[in-house]
Amino acid sequence: MKAFMDKDFLLLTDTAQELYHQHAAKQPIIDYHCHLDPAMVAADHRFRSITELWLGGDHYKWRAMRTNGVPERLITGKDTTDWEKFEAWAATVPYTFRNPLYHWTHLELKTAFGIDKRLNPETAREIYDACNDRLQNDPAFTARGLMQYYNVEVVCTTDDPVDDLRHHRAYSEEIVNGKSSNGKLPLMLPAWRPDKAMAVENPVAYRAYVEKLGAAADASVGTFSDFIDALQRRHDFFHEQGCRLSDHGLEEFYAEPYTDTEIDVIYNKVMGGDELDATETRKFKSAMLYIFAVQDHAAGWVQQYHYGAQRNNNSRMMEQLGPDTGFDSIGQWNTARSMARFLDLLDNEGRLTKTILYNLNPADNEMVATMLGNFQDGSVAGKIQWGSGWWFLDQKDGMERQMNSLSLLGLLSRFVGMLTDSRSFLSYPRHEYFRRTLCNLLGNDIEQGLLPFTGYEEQRMRQMVEDISYNNAKRYFM
Amino acid sequence: MKAFMDKDFLLLTDTAQELYHQHAAKQPIIDYHCHLDPAMVAADHRFRSITELWLGGDHYKWRAMRTNGVPERLITGKDTTDWEKFEAWAATVPYTFRNPLYHWTHLELKTAFGIDKRLNPETAREIYDACNDRLQNDPAFTARGLMQYYNVEVVCTTDDPVDDLRHHRAYSEEIVNGKSSNGKLPLMLPAWRPDKAMAVENPVAYRAYVEKLGAAADASVGTFSDFIDALQRRHDFFHEQGCRLSDHGLEEFYAEPYTDTEIDVIYNKVMGGDELDATETRKFKSAMLYIFAVQDHAAGWVQQYHYGAQRNNNSRMMEQLGPDTGFDSIGQWNTARSMARFLDLLDNEGRLTKTILYNLNPADNEMVATMLGNFQDGSVAGKIQWGSGWWFLDQKDGMERQMNSLSLLGLLSRFVGMLTDSRSFLSYPRHEYFRRTLCNLLGNDIEQGLLPFTGYEEQRMRQMVEDISYNNAKRYFM
Amino acid sequence: MKAFMDKDFLLLTDTAQELYHQHAAKQPIIDYHCHLDPAMVAADHRFRSITELWLGGDHYKWRAMRTNGVPERLITGKDTTDWEKFEAWAATVPYTFRNPLYHWTHLELKTAFGIDKRLNPETAREIYDACNDRLQNDPAFTARGLMQYYNVEVVCTTDDPVDDLRHHRAYSEEIVNGKSSNGKLPLMLPAWRPDKAMAVENPVAYRAYVEKLGAAADASVGTFSDFIDALQRRHDFFHEQGCRLSDHGLEEFYAEPYTDTEIDVIYNKVMGGDELDATETRKFKSAMLYIFAVQDHAAGWVQQYHYGAQRNNNSRMMEQLGPDTGFDSIGQWNTARSMARFLDLLDNEGRLTKTILYNLNPADNEMVATMLGNFQDGSVAGKIQWGSGWWFLDQKDGMERQMNSLSLLGLLSRFVGMLTDSRSFLSYPRHEYFRRTLCNLLGNDIEQGLLPFTGYEEQRMRQMVEDISYNNAKRYFM
Repeated sequence: MKAFMDKDFLLLTDTAQELYHQHAAKQPIIDYHCHLDPAMVAADHRFRSITELWLGGDHYKWRAMRTNGVPERLITGKDTTDWEKFEAWAATVPYTFRNPLYHWTHLELKTAFGIDKRLNPETAREIYDACNDRLQNDPAFTARGLMQYYNVEVVCTTDDPVDDLRHHRAYSEEIVNGKSSNGKLPLMLPAWRPDKAMAVENPVAYRAYVEKLGAAADASVGTFSDFIDALQRRHDFFHEQGCRLSDHGLEEFYAEPYTDTEIDVIYNKVMGGDELDATETRKFKSAMLYIFAVQDHAAGWVQQYHYGAQRNNNSRMMEQLGPDTGFDSIGQWNTARSMARFLDLLDNEGRLTKTILYNLNPADNEMVATMLGNFQDGSVAGKIQWGSGWWFLDQKDGMERQMNSLSLLGLLSRFVGMLTDSRSFLSYPRHEYFRRTLCNLLGNDIEQGLLPFTGYEEQRMRQMVEDISYNNAKRYFM
Repeated sequence: MKAFMDKDFLLLTDTAQELYHQHAAKQPIIDYHCHLDPAMVAADHRFRSITELWLGGDHYKWRAMRTNGVPERLITGKDTTDWEKFEAWAATVPYTFRNPLYHWTHLELKTAFGIDKRLNPETAREIYDACNDRLQNDPAFTARGLMQYYNVEVVCTTDDPVDDLRHHRAYSEEIVNGKSSNGKLPLMLPAWRPDKAMAVENPVAYRAYVEKLGAAADASVGTFSDFIDALQRRHDFFHEQGCRLSDHGLEEFYAEPYTDTEIDVIYNKVMGGDELDATETRKFKSAMLYIFAVQDHAAGWVQQYHYGAQRNNNSRMMEQLGPDTGFDSIGQWNTARSMARFLDLLDNEGRLTKTILYNLNPADNEMVATMLGNFQDGSVAGKIQWGSGWWFLDQKDGMERQMNSLSLLGLLSRFVGMLTDSRSFLSYPRHEYFRRTLCNLLGNDIEQGLLPFTGYEEQRMRQMVEDISYNNAKRYFM
Repeated sequence: MKAFMDKDFLLLTDTAQELYHQHAAKQPIIDYHCHLDPAMVAADHRFRSITELWLGGDHYKWRAMRTNGVPERLITGKDTTDWEKFEAWAATVPYTFRNPLYHWTHLELKTAFGIDKRLNPETAREIYDACNDRLQNDPAFTARGLMQYYNVEVVCTTDDPVDDLRHHRAYSEEIVNGKSSNGKLPLMLPAWRPDKAMAVENPVAYRAYVEKLGAAADASVGTFSDFIDALQRRHDFFHEQGCRLSDHGLEEFYAEPYTDTEIDVIYNKVMGGDELDATETRKFKSAMLYIFAVQDHAAGWVQQYHYGAQRNNNSRMMEQLGPDTGFDSIGQWNTARSMARFLDLLDNEGRLTKTILYNLNPADNEMVATMLGNFQDGSVAGKIQWGSGWWFLDQKDGMERQMNSLSLLGLLSRFVGMLTDSRSFLSYPRHEYFRRTLCNLLGNDIEQGLLPFTGYEEQRMRQMVEDISYNNAKRYFM
């Protein structure tokens, strides 16, 4: 019996162990998509407790607690102490066997805090106190300190076009001017997430957003053309701040035929206070998706599409807690045709920039994996990428399925690899988790004679592990 | 080479063997969803032959025989002898390698009859005679005897609202009054399956059914409101007979907006002899699904939804043999949105009772597994459940996929576990099959260092095995 | 560590090795669906280079090269040398680790050319020269020689109804008359692929095709009835040439209600130069699918359906290279209902002939696997078949998933097994790949005690391996 989470965790063969420890583990982290709060990095935030760090905004843990019969008061309650919440979580942890939370929790305790004990009601207090002591007193346990500790080289946050990026700018200046007393600090770059600029299904919120965008761009938004110009000004501004990456959250893809005149009319209609019908909404979204992509191509950015989430399913809790609080799930859309039309339109005009597609429903895996090949044009290795297992799929099985299908239907060797997609400064061990999983897959194949591991091919294999862990992303994004 | 179906069948690690033999195997069976004939239990039916027991209504075996080129006469023919049918089945068995029928057949022979031989043309006569001898002569080999032998504590049958439940009542009285000369007998409770009360797609049958319901409830069904009152009276009657569980067979979920007036009109239309259009049909089904759920919530019942079957695909055989004779298959519906809307409507009104969702298409697995979390409200651990692999998915791979996805996307520890969904008194070894599969999954994880197995966590793991085998269901349904 | 691709490649247990070497390996090949060029067989084509053989039309390799950043010039360029293309491919090969191309490439090098080296930039020249030497100089390395070498007994090509089958006829005469100086030559039979006869979505091309068909049949195509008569004449002609097999490439199934009059009108409309609307198109396709099936049933043929590909997604490359050049992918259609309706209509009239269903999206696997059972009528063992992993799914994982689901939801023992679906004379090792995979699955099950392997059952298992490798197809098609 292998010990739980020992140094060869997830590495079932000698070859896997060697590949991981000698190659993967040493690579820095490029976390090219996350949801960190830039203010915390700029301020080098110190956490008051492990509860703030772990339970402040982690809807994965909240869902597990609700499922385990924990009342909301102990999960998101305003007048609950940090200890009460931690205690409720600790009591839930032993009920999360086989859930990725069980691994993440212990990997974070181990790598960040050096704690090898398992979290359960008996160890809760001791672990709580130990973590808090480090968080409150150890100079290395701040937002920046954690990033440095985990060897993070770059993080790309996720930002709205109206954002003034003041924290990115302040932090960048500090790095550039060498003001920081710490050692080598990671780059923090913004990423462009203009979802609200196409969210016409809610006209009231849409108008308010467009006004905000106009203000941020210091430009008129009276016509659709003005609106697009204002967006472009913000795009330019993001570019100046180092942004080279966009991201789009979609239910499905939109690629309806439309005319510019139609879009002008639809824009005027929604800005005039009217609701749009389903056809108008789809046409408008099709236009916006296309324009976003053209802007990204012109600037030489990478574009990302996260599609397939069915969000805010619980209206009672939406009212109570707002979005992103654990009431989203995996949706079902047959979007292959629209996805292809959208990408083809861009490719046909020579305007398809580097693209990463993330699906949430694993039933779409093979569809997406084969979509890539339709638009690989030989200009850049791995130009069209399939994003690593996203959200619910960001776990061992989800990563294995993504890597297996990518291997079989595309080229694993050109994969840009892992990202955390996380709000937490403690999520970097997910890169370790990914790399161990990758090495384990390769190790199994090698041990079974499915892959060669001598001479030229051995060197290639070792290089491939380093590439997927680090070099591919570095080359792709820079 | 491990011997076929030895005592450690399906248990590939020492840990799995220990968990199974020391914990899972000892638990009684709560078979909370099945299709047993209550009359057979009430009468303590004795089977004339293994053919009656095995081939009388088992459409799994019928399908396998048709696929193997066996003519219908030897499968469902009226003037075929029991031996002829058994012989045809015995000749098919060696062609079912890797199909769950091969395992079920031999597990039933072994556990019920103590027969270790494999069924094939050479052993057919000997096995036929041996089984029949026990069935005809051994006092323990009756309907009740088999249930006791397999340590069944409760069975919940599946009953139409118009059913008078006379067999349930007779049997219950017998138990309560201690009239039975046998040892401890299982409880037999009815379950409420009102599918016909929403089946407006066939107006002629629908009207006939509504009249029957009115008669059973001794109430008018002249208006929609009357109809619902009549349903409620039957619901109350079922409740009095111990029913705490409903079940609904759906193609997909229905959650269209409608007004009460619209439903009144639709009801009058269908009762007046007219066909409904697609929109009316969906609105009516949406209303009925909602009302069923409200009735169940008010009574504190658990509600079950089996969705996704495409039934009666072969019209020729439907004409010849009727429904449920082996001509159904796995359908394709994108129902995530409607499912969420339906559950949200109830949750929003505080009327969402404990719910079990069963999908037939495994491509929906992850969608369903993540749907649960949207409506877990912390009131009861595991309030919203994902039902164990259903029908075509009720086999090792289907159960593993369900348990793996449930583990990754929810909490396996809170799972209410297995049910037979069977028409046969010999299907109880499927609980054994399930428990072995569960223990094997855990054993593999433990052996590979993916789960801890010392101290507190070892005790939790042992407890979890017992919980999923028995305690979770006991707590959930009682 | 098992050596890469040794004699026990893919065979992880002793039992698997025994089953493969003693049973599977010895069986001849019936390649009942492929896309070989009959002219090459008739002329006993000699290949000028491994580049022609490997890279002349293999869109799998082309996709991999594009993904690897190889410019189109080195992939499909007209003025690129064979060596340049081969060199670009050789440089790509080490980037295809875990892709089936890596296995296919080395299995072909090994079995055809006796080359055990791995292809990479260092070995490229040596391997290129060695292969070309054999291809240009060895008398056995022609189109026919390769087929004989791989023990091919029958190939069924894929042919349009307008084809005059001159190469099939010439080749058959040569065999019949014993004119060939070679040893035993495989049969080459045509297969009927009438896709263009229902492709009304493009009226211009459709009219041109109908005229061609009329000319080929030497018949009028003035009315729909004439058109069907002309088709039937070609069907009869194909039958005379030994054809017993049809094939249909579909996005999804079509089974809309229609009247004969409607179809007459639609035919006149499209032939008169008009575009059809979506409803007319679906009705027409429904009619054609039905008529094709009736013709096949009347002639006692097997019918095949390959559905689910989303083709020609890249309009720029479609313009440049035409179809089938690597720009197709896996589509998403919920076609279960139409598929069932279509098959039911035929079954109901006693006109459902032997049928093989191939799906491209593995998310449909279980739907298709259970569809079979709806129409197995006991007349022929395995009458309705689920085709082996097709196109993107024709790899170890795809084959395993198909065989696992077929095992669980149908009868693996009645499976007609592998086909290459290939344009290449070097693809026959895919049968070896398939057989090894089959034996490995069985070996694992036996070793784990999931299947018996003594006495009667051992013999059955050995026989089953031979059946799936060869006998089942022989019985099914002949």
